[in-house]
Amino acid sequence: MNGLHLTADLYDCANHTLLVDEAALAGLCQNEVAKAGLQTVGERWHCFPSHPDGPGGITGVVLLAESHLAIHTWPERTAVTLDVYVCNFGRDNSEAAKALLNALTTAFEPGHKHCQQLQRGELG
Amino acid sequence: MNGLHLTADLYDCANHTLLVDEAALAGLCQNEVAKAGLQTVGERWHCFPSHPDGPGGITGVVLLAESHLAIHTWPERTAVTLDVYVCNFGRDNSEAAKALLNALTTAFEPGHKHCQQLQRGELG
Repeated sequence: MNGLHLTADLYDCANHTLLVDEAALAGLCQNEVAKAGLQTVGERWHCFPSHPDGPGGITGVVLLAESHLAIHTWPERTAVTLDVYVCNFGRDNSEAAKALLNALTTAFEPGHKHCQQLQRGELG
Repeated sequence: MNGLHLTADLYDCANHTLLVDEAALAGLCQNEVAKAGLQTVGERWHCFPSHPDGPGGITGVVLLAESHLAIHTWPERTAVTLDVYVCNFGRDNSEAAKALLNALTTAFEPGHKHCQQLQRGELG
């Protein structure tokens, strides 16, 4: 359970499709998880309904053998929050977590971002 | 997207059922989400296979209208990692997030724990 939990809050995202298109966003996540060498064991997505100002956001998660990836989009704010938590059971997955977060961040084309990280499970 | 992200890493959990029983764990999460006044929009659970040392762990997520709850159990270590991230879209959900995390933590009966928190989406 020891591992790295990375978060990124993305602003002024130029890739509007990824903010509102569930299939595009899910496909991106599936591809980037595989490219990072991580293993998907399940996923779940939800689209919020459209409102007078435009389409609703998307919220979703990819369950990983190594923990999880979570994404929430706010198209009305052209913003996204990302979480990648990977445990190091069997091997150090920190570089894979960073690669996945970086690839997803790049895809949204944010104007600016705020990244944080936590070490998890250090007492175990 | 502004909101509070709480994490808790739980050790020496005495409630072994919740570490290995998907239905019990999912039911607990569903009940506690509702009691905290948060809204479920989807969920996904995965049980890892048993191994020579005992049953596999459970990983799962509840997608919330307010963001997400994620749980990973490690029965071989009697340990759990919890995440509750709630955005404050429309109202301040910080107290609901704390109530949910506390209720879940109590249910696992941990001998000790490590709690952290992040403020998310502050630039938006």
